[in-house]
Amino acid sequence: MRDAFHEALDQISDQLVEMTRLAGSAMSRATTALLDADLQLAESVIAADENIDDLRRQLDNMAIDLLARQQPVATDLRMVVTAMRMSADLERMGDLARHIAKVARLRYPDSAIPPVLRPTIVDMGHEAERIVIQTGAVIHSKDVHEAQALEQADDAMDALHRKIFNTLLSGSWDQGVQAAVDVTLVGRYYERFADHAVSVARRVVYLVTGEWADEDAEIPGIDVGDDDNDES
Amino acid sequence: MRDAFHEALDQISDQLVEMTRLAGSAMSRATTALLDADLQLAESVIAADENIDDLRRQLDNMAIDLLARQQPVATDLRMVVTAMRMSADLERMGDLARHIAKVARLRYPDSAIPPVLRPTIVDMGHEAERIVIQTGAVIHSKDVHEAQALEQADDAMDALHRKIFNTLLSGSWDQGVQAAVDVTLVGRYYERFADHAVSVARRVVYLVTGEWADEDAEIPGIDVGDDDNDES
Repeated sequence: MRDAFHEALDQISDQLVEMTRLAGSAMSRATTALLDADLQLAESVIAADENIDDLRRQLDNMAIDLLARQQPVATDLRMVVTAMRMSADLERMGDLARHIAKVARLRYPDSAIPPVLRPTIVDMGHEAERIVIQTGAVIHSKDVHEAQALEQADDAMDALHRKIFNTLLSGSWDQGVQAAVDVTLVGRYYERFADHAVSVARRVVYLVTGEWADEDAEIPGIDVGDDDNDES
Repeated sequence: MRDAFHEALDQISDQLVEMTRLAGSAMSRATTALLDADLQLAESVIAADENIDDLRRQLDNMAIDLLARQQPVATDLRMVVTAMRMSADLERMGDLARHIAKVARLRYPDSAIPPVLRPTIVDMGHEAERIVIQTGAVIHSKDVHEAQALEQADDAMDALHRKIFNTLLSGSWDQGVQAAVDVTLVGRYYERFADHAVSVARRVVYLVTGEWADEDAEIPGIDVGDDDNDES
């Protein structure tokens, strides 16, 4: 039988998994809203972000309460602190889905995404969904190998992000400046979403192995800011 | 005389102020590197980000050590947890300065910023410096009114950010897609830098008053993602 501390920690872990579910649902709906110029769907994503924020507040209060009541030390202490960091990442992932929904809303009744980039955005949406599902599985299983597989999924996202820049800078871009600005921002939101997911997975690895993955590998290429895989 | 716990907390607070100093210096040099297409300066900003990351790691270790040794509860506990969140914000501010330096490096020997937007970027650089200096002062003084003044500085940054979009989308943009992409990203980095500074100030207010400022006020306007004043 588990003691009170580890029971509480299990509860926190379940909340984190629930946050991945909400962030994934938000991102999936935001992608559809963006591609279909679906205003109602966009509004629903924007409104629902409140729920992820609430969940984070609850989780952080549980964690602080646990620190105060149980006074954990060593690994137990690090687990609680790390859970709070994961909740910050997951809340941010919800924000990024909301940002994408806002771009959809801003350009309604048009779609912000010109036809030439629709396949790339569809792929980014799928990749984001895959990544956040894997993140939930990793929090649940604490499987280090599964966590490492997430780094590869993030590489796929980075490749899609580069594809956006390649399309924009190919010299044949004829969709105007507004569309260029929109896809630049949207591309960055998807990429950051994946970065935060990887950050969550790295925290799981850290909890299991005590070692923090190399967080600042430079990714060569045309784009900038791809090396965002850091702790924030 | 202060007890061991509050002495340690003072030390952590001093480290946070030092982090604002480093982030401010990085941002100031990144702005110069960007405007002057100064490769060496850009490289030095990119390399120096390591120092901010180190400081954050040290600070977090001090905080975790303090939790383990002193087992604080109630307000004392919240102070330590909040300090760790501040260090995350400040580390991220360093990352954003590094991103700007990377744009400078990517476009060297050209400047990424076309003449029409130089005055706006100069202003954003100044605003960023002002904001981070104020952030350091607020951490030191824990003055709630000073913290609230930071919200206004952030409004000034948001206005500059909108100015970039207005210039891009005025219909008279003739600087090409690459420059549009660069200034879109650079503008976002400055804006996020200010957001994180405001987030630090809000945490100070929270520590003093126990109340968390409204974090999600919508800013109407042409741009997207301006309502990023959240906890991450």
